[in-house]
Amino acid sequence: MKKHNFFAGPAILPAPVLEQAAEAVKEFAGMGLSILEISHRSKQFAAVLEEAQATTKELLGLGDDFEVLFLTGGASSQFFMSAMNLLDQGETACYVDTGTWSTKAIKEAKHFGNIEVLASSKDSNFNYIPKGYEIPANAKYLHLTSNNTIYGTQYHSLPDTNVPIVCDMSSDIFSRPINADRYGMIYAGAQKNLGPAGTTLVMVRKDMLGKVNREIPTMLDYNTHIKKASAFNTPPVYPIYVCLLTMRWLKEQGGIAAMQKHNEEKGAMLYNEIDRNPMFKGTAAKEDRSLMNVTFVMNDGHEDKADAFMQTCQENGIMGIKGHRSVGGFRASTYNAMSKESIGILVDLMKNFS
Amino acid sequence: MKKHNFFAGPAILPAPVLEQAAEAVKEFAGMGLSILEISHRSKQFAAVLEEAQATTKELLGLGDDFEVLFLTGGASSQFFMSAMNLLDQGETACYVDTGTWSTKAIKEAKHFGNIEVLASSKDSNFNYIPKGYEIPANAKYLHLTSNNTIYGTQYHSLPDTNVPIVCDMSSDIFSRPINADRYGMIYAGAQKNLGPAGTTLVMVRKDMLGKVNREIPTMLDYNTHIKKASAFNTPPVYPIYVCLLTMRWLKEQGGIAAMQKHNEEKGAMLYNEIDRNPMFKGTAAKEDRSLMNVTFVMNDGHEDKADAFMQTCQENGIMGIKGHRSVGGFRASTYNAMSKESIGILVDLMKNFS
Repeated sequence: MKKHNFFAGPAILPAPVLEQAAEAVKEFAGMGLSILEISHRSKQFAAVLEEAQATTKELLGLGDDFEVLFLTGGASSQFFMSAMNLLDQGETACYVDTGTWSTKAIKEAKHFGNIEVLASSKDSNFNYIPKGYEIPANAKYLHLTSNNTIYGTQYHSLPDTNVPIVCDMSSDIFSRPINADRYGMIYAGAQKNLGPAGTTLVMVRKDMLGKVNREIPTMLDYNTHIKKASAFNTPPVYPIYVCLLTMRWLKEQGGIAAMQKHNEEKGAMLYNEIDRNPMFKGTAAKEDRSLMNVTFVMNDGHEDKADAFMQTCQENGIMGIKGHRSVGGFRASTYNAMSKESIGILVDLMKNFS
Repeated sequence: MKKHNFFAGPAILPAPVLEQAAEAVKEFAGMGLSILEISHRSKQFAAVLEEAQATTKELLGLGDDFEVLFLTGGASSQFFMSAMNLLDQGETACYVDTGTWSTKAIKEAKHFGNIEVLASSKDSNFNYIPKGYEIPANAKYLHLTSNNTIYGTQYHSLPDTNVPIVCDMSSDIFSRPINADRYGMIYAGAQKNLGPAGTTLVMVRKDMLGKVNREIPTMLDYNTHIKKASAFNTPPVYPIYVCLLTMRWLKEQGGIAAMQKHNEEKGAMLYNEIDRNPMFKGTAAKEDRSLMNVTFVMNDGHEDKADAFMQTCQENGIMGIKGHRSVGGFRASTYNAMSKESIGILVDLMKNFS
């Protein structure tokens, strides 16, 4: 039976990417060796790193004012590294709290400066994106989490400010075009739209750096990795290579604008069914619904049918659709590589469920 | 032509490991999905993590007083994390400087306490392991680099002290049995004897932890990862899985004692030829020669033949044998997965070279 991978992350990757990824484990770039056993200083891997950095810039429309790094440690490490590198003691950075990951980013940043939380949707179990708050013009940066994997919410427009935005895009990077001018830094764990677990994409505007006075251990200093083009120490060779394969696939699909259309169409299929079907209801505010993580629960009066629907999903090859414990119910993660065919199968199961 | 992988790291992995690693990229554990796209919370990956931790302990003979972690960031991150977690401001830790990586460990540790460098072989381009220095009994720990990849030296016995040893074993982990009682912490980047680049093995004795007063960002605190068994955030799923495959292979080979015998036999083949052949000479002090990285140069009067020997190697499928620029000449890295057959081919080329 064909499996439909709705995991929230690590998550579905395109089939052709997986084929090439398996091939490279056997033999890479005509070297007669596996990619798992080649030097990160080999010219073959140097070419991978260079293409991965260039393609990231090309896909996202980043100018030469941005540096692109492939690091490790996940977005969880960027929670503190961003503040450590960008915010001096005594300076203020602003954060918006849209759920678990924002909350963690706020906690870690507090080691390094004054953290002002401008708004939070905690009052409503993070089921909406706060709006209408004031952003102090003297803030060093404004930190946002563009897509909230657990709660199924996503920013569909950015707050109006001249303060540079530092954005955790772990779960919606490469899913839609961005306005690069608005960002001072963007970071993303690879394991949703970008590749397998094991590398973290960091894009930082050069003028944001070199303005703090604290001592920073070498490996935590973005400038260390910028100077050595992500190869100061041994980078995670294979995860980076699979990210490159995914980016090549993205380009073949027509780039990020085409991906946005694809994701909007998939989102419409699923949300239309959720809204139409009296058995189910969505959990996120309609205007803030995520196109990456579609969260829904059984509708009032049908709560006792949750297990039966889960069973139906399992019997039909739908995997990873259990909602996060903070929200309950179901979460269909519909990253770039998810096909309309798989969405259609889930929608049909919902239609036929009683 | 068959390739013989003498790269210093990332380095040769066993052929059966690479086969299984490629298979898992296509389909993992009967899930109908690639290992690159499954949740790190799936029971299938939880089993991988658990087996990897247990097998590490089994192979190295670590007791229940040790915690085993699979982190990221390389040994380079452990240079500062070890001191950050183990050494309080005002306390003293002792280091021995045996080359580039020790030197970096010393530099990063200085952010966090008093660092006393007891001995260094810098006076002689790190071609020997210093001995006979005094170790202050009140030191919090003694930091050693067990094998020096660049300079081809290796500790063959530990200094006599009751101070717990913190050891960077990146390039000789699993190559020989260790006396676990002597260590407070051991760390190793995976990409030599253990697996592909992308994960870092950290083994720490529980009683070394929780004794510093500084604030530590969550991701840099060993206790964070201990409490969540290396899954506090998304771990590098695939690199960890390939490490487990390598450890299973090690067990099949007879474990670490068998590996030591294998490595000693390979070392004897290569060093005997270096000592016998008037065209070549070794660069490391004989009693400190590494069984992982065999460094040698053209002998006096034959310096002009280096390029020709390199050419001969390339023509015969010997890859990655160029010495590090700090030493020059040649470096044959002969990690666990390197066969005697490949060593024999290199030795024959040396024998026949004129």
